[in-house]
Parts: sequence; structure tokens; C-alpha cells
Amino acid sequence: MKKHNFSAGPCILPQEVMQEAAEAVLNFNNSGLSLIEISHRSSEFVAVMERARALALELLGLENQGYQTLFLQGGASTEFLRVAYNLLENKAAYLNTGTWSSKALKEAKILGEVVEVASSKDKGFNYIPKAYQIPKDADYFHCTSNNTIFGTQIKEFPSTDIPMVCDMSSDIFSRVLDFSKFDLIYAGAQKNMGPAGTTLVVVKEEILGKMSRTIPSMLDYQTQIAKDSMFNTPPVFAVFTSMLTLEWLKNKGGIAAIEEINDKKAQLLYSEIELNPLFDGFANKADRSNMNATFTLNKPELKDSFDTMWKEAGINGLNGHRSVGGYRASMYNALSLESVGTLVDIMSELERKA
Amino acid sequence: MKKHNFSAGPCILPQEVMQEAAEAVLNFNNSGLSLIEISHRSSEFVAVMERARALALELLGLENQGYQTLFLQGGASTEFLRVAYNLLENKAAYLNTGTWSSKALKEAKILGEVVEVASSKDKGFNYIPKAYQIPKDADYFHCTSNNTIFGTQIKEFPSTDIPMVCDMSSDIFSRVLDFSKFDLIYAGAQKNMGPAGTTLVVVKEEILGKMSRTIPSMLDYQTQIAKDSMFNTPPVFAVFTSMLTLEWLKNKGGIAAIEEINDKKAQLLYSEIELNPLFDGFANKADRSNMNATFTLNKPELKDSFDTMWKEAGINGLNGHRSVGGYRASMYNALSLESVGTLVDIMSELERKA
Repeated sequence: MKKHNFSAGPCILPQEVMQEAAEAVLNFNNSGLSLIEISHRSSEFVAVMERARALALELLGLENQGYQTLFLQGGASTEFLRVAYNLLENKAAYLNTGTWSSKALKEAKILGEVVEVASSKDKGFNYIPKAYQIPKDADYFHCTSNNTIFGTQIKEFPSTDIPMVCDMSSDIFSRVLDFSKFDLIYAGAQKNMGPAGTTLVVVKEEILGKMSRTIPSMLDYQTQIAKDSMFNTPPVFAVFTSMLTLEWLKNKGGIAAIEEINDKKAQLLYSEIELNPLFDGFANKADRSNMNATFTLNKPELKDSFDTMWKEAGINGLNGHRSVGGYRASMYNALSLESVGTLVDIMSELERKA
Repeated sequence: MKKHNFSAGPCILPQEVMQEAAEAVLNFNNSGLSLIEISHRSSEFVAVMERARALALELLGLENQGYQTLFLQGGASTEFLRVAYNLLENKAAYLNTGTWSSKALKEAKILGEVVEVASSKDKGFNYIPKAYQIPKDADYFHCTSNNTIFGTQIKEFPSTDIPMVCDMSSDIFSRVLDFSKFDLIYAGAQKNMGPAGTTLVVVKEEILGKMSRTIPSMLDYQTQIAKDSMFNTPPVFAVFTSMLTLEWLKNKGGIAAIEEINDKKAQLLYSEIELNPLFDGFANKADRSNMNATFTLNKPELKDSFDTMWKEAGINGLNGHRSVGGYRASMYNALSLESVGTLVDIMSELERKA
């Protein structure tokens, strides 16, 4: 039976990517060796790393603008710390839109003063704060573009003269943005880019090298850049599979093309949530995420039938995050419109039956 | 043609492990979903993580002795820093036996005083220092069990009352040791345990929690332990494939059984290096590594023929590290005695032809 994978991350990747990744584990580039048993210093793997780095910049439209691309380890959670280590000398400004922003802010506080410019905690993080001041004397401004857990997404980014840092883990490569507004973008791979195990960092080189502290080697972006993202052994499988996914996206027509499909998927599901009296959306309408739709069933007595119905239809990963409850449908790049249609059909069917 | 993979790391893994890993990328546990698209919080993946952690402890003979096992990200290079963050309050003692020890020492220095108890740098790291004093007032003693680049290996570990920390990246699971002598063992997966992208940490819990500094979340072993090695999304593929390799080792009879084969492989190659007048071993005989044999060809005019011969025989990864030159044959657990035989045959053939 066809599966409809709405997991929040790790999540669905294109079927052909999974096929090619599995083949490479058996026989990489027809070498008779597995992708995972060759040296990361071999010309074959160096080419993979270079291709992945180049594709990321190309898709974001950031070539020849002073940006460097890295594929690191440790997830976005490690970037919370690396960002502060590399950029926080005196004071940093953070926008708090949920669990991940809060965690980023907490790590930065270990290294310096942090100003929380605004927070949506007062309403359980169901909206994106809009009117806030970013202190001009802060070293950088940090925000989270999409909040996987609460299902909110920043639609308009502020303008500021200080460096702008953004955690785009859960919506990078899903919508067209002026990425050159950002000085540092980071994203755990396991949503729109690849399997868990690597983190993309895109950083404008000119903002680095200004700290008075000694930065440990593994946390120093300049060290990683100087070694072409191979200061130590990279997570070979995760980088290779990310490269395949970026190649897939390029062949699909890039971010603009996938955004059209992502918009359709989100519109289809949000219309159903609005029209179907059994369901309520969690996030403020203007701030709803096109990646993660959070909603609740307002008749608890129907929960069992609903759960049985979607599971029987081959749907997977629809339970909400433990801190929010309800349901969450994650509609990343590789999820088809057909899968969203299947979910919407079941929601309507539940309404008819109820 | 059959390949003989002597790569220093990433390196050969058992053929059946590669097969099973590839199958799981296509269809994990017959779920219709890929290993890399399911939630790391799913019961299926939690079982993988638990199994991998339990197998590591079991194979090392460290069950029920107060040890915790973690599968982290960032490679041994990140542990250089994590160790110091978690254990270095005043002063640490390091034994310097090569590139990796030197790097570990450098990172520790960022956080406190470091005493280099001994170093073999005077002879290009071709031996293991033996008579040295470990200061009793140091927070811990750190050593590197096997030096991949120089091909040396500690055969007898010192006794000390302070916590003993060991980087076993390149020989863990290859030989029987009294692992309970160590309070913290870490190892990048990409030699005897799995693909690049995860690091095994085995730590005696009682040595933790004694620092006056605030430890960043991702660097804090206690945080990682409290979250059962899933503080953030783990590197799913690398952990799963490590679990398969540990399972393979257990089925082989564990460390004692593989050590017998490893001894035979090393004896076969080192005998040839000693008897064949064309080759010279790099490392001091008493300290030679059973994992990485380093040697040079003493007739440069034969280099081209030798290189052609081993490549034509399907041998891969025999070039020495750029900092040593010559040749390096890495004979990790998954490399067969037959592969070593193939290399030795070619070395003898070169002698006959010369």
C-alpha cells in the first residue's frame, strides 16, 4: 500500500533519492565499493561535497556574493552554540517564536548578553510577533523562520543593519525568499534537504573573525571554511543524500517551482481545516506554516475513528508534537499533493460520518 | 573483481551490513517507509538506539558497572572539546602519541591547564612513550589507544588513580582490553563500528557533574544521558548501521574472536615487511598497530610497478597519510585475512621481479 508520510522530521524524501542512496551504499559510482567505505579524502567523495555545497548556494541564489557553504554535524542544536561562539561578543538580539528559538536563546546566554526582542509565549507560540525593535548595537539578530512544533512561519522578515541569522531548519528550500538579506542561515538536513546527520550552514564570510575569544576548532566557522567543510571526517552518507535531494530539487525547477506545489498543498489542507466544523487550526491564520499544519479535533469522541481512518489509508506521522497535542501534518517538499488530498478526503469523510 | 579495501577510515564494513543498511534505506522493518524518513521518536527507531547502546556495552563487557553509552555527532574531534568541557576544572594530563593526541591536547588547553606527560614527537611519533609520571592532582589522564596515521598502538595502559580517558577511534572492538580501567572511552564510528557520522561515548557516570562552569547543552554528557542519547535528532543512518555492525561482531563471537583474526592478519603483513628487503616498517616494533601498518618502499624506482600491481589486484586505499608518506595498510575488523594475503602476495612478487 502506498504510504503518505506526514512526519515532522526526519521526514519524507523523494523516492528516487532513497533509491539512489541505497544503491550507493551497495556500490558507489560503479566502483565496487560502498559509499560508506571509501575515504572522505578520495576524489570521488570530495566531488560529492563540492557538488552539495555548490548546489545549496545555487538554489538559494547566493553564488558569488561572499557566502560560504558548510555541511557540519550536530544538528541545529549545535548551531545554537556555534552562532554565539562566532558572533556574540557583547550582546545579541533574539526573536522568540517557540521551542527552538527558546533553545537557541538559552545557549547564546552562556556566552553573552541576550535581548529577547519579542516573544509569542503569551499565547502558547501560536503567532509571530510583528512590531518589535531590534537594538542597533547588538552583534546580530537571530530568528527561526518556521516553527515545526507550533506550525507558525515568518512571512515577512524585518530589516536591520546588523547581521541577520536565521534557523531555517524546517522550511529552507521550500519558498522563494531574498536569501541575501541573511548573513548566516543554518538548517538541520532532516526536513527538506536530506537524512538526519548533517547541518547546512550558509554564512557571509565578512561577518566572521571578529571575536576576542578563542573559538574551539570544531565550533569555529572559519576553521571549517578553511578546510572546505572537511576539517574532520564528514557524515558521508548524510552529505551524499543531501546532494541527491538538492539535485532532485534543481531538476524540478528549483525553489520557485516547488513553492507553487507547496502553496497548493497548504491551501488544500487549510481550506479543509477552516471549512470542516470538526477541526480547529492551532496557529494564527496570518502566520500559518506552509510546512507544518497544526490542528485539533474538537469532538474527542471521534478521535478513535479518525485515527483508525487515516492509519488505514496509509497515512503516517500525523500525531501532534507532545508539547502541543492534537494533529500535525508536515508537508515538506517531497510530499505529494496526492498525499494531502488523501488526508483531506478522510477529514471530509469523518465529517459526513459524524 | 573482488575489492580489497585497506582504507584508513571511513573503511571496510562487513558486506552483509552494507546489504542490510541499503535495504533499510528502501524499506525499514517492512514498514513501507525508509529508515531515513521515519521519526527518531518512533518506537522502531528508539529500539534501534537502545539496541546499539546495549550492544556496545555488552561487547566491551561493561554492563552494570555504572557506565552510560551515547551515540553523538561531531566525530572524535568534537569529543576533544566535550571531554575538557565536562572534566577539566583545573588541570589535565595528556599523553601525546601523534596528530590526534596533539589535537585533543590543543582543544583542552582552551579550557584549562594541560600537562603533556610525554610525547613521541622527537622521533616523528614512531613509538609509544613508556616511562612517564601522571600527576596525581590532575582531573584526568587522556591517551589515544591507536595512532592511525603513524601506525602505533598502546599495548599496556598505565595505572592511575585519576579518571582515565581514551580516544579509541581506530581500534575499539578490535582487541580484548580491561575496558573497566577506563572512565571515558570515545570513538568515531568510521573504523570498526560503522559509517562516518556518529561517535560512541562510553562514560562512567560518577565522574560527571563536577564542573563549576556552565556546559552548553550539546556538549554536556549529562544532558545527553538524561535524554537517552536523543537530546536532539540523532544521525539515524549512522546509528542504525553501527548497530548492524555491532550485531555482526557479536554473532562472530565478539571481540575475543575477532582479535584472533586481527592478530593473524597483522602477523602475516608484518612478517612480510620484516622479511622482504624492499620494505621498511615505520613504527617501532614493540608498538606496531594491529590496525594500521605503516611502511615504505626503499627502492623509489619500483614505486610505479608496485602501485600498478596492487591496484590491478583490486587493492584500494593503500597510500600513506599525507603527513607520513609511504604506504599504510589498515586492517580493520571487516577486512579478511584473504585480503591481507593478496597484499602480501604482491609484495613478494615485487621482490621476485626486482
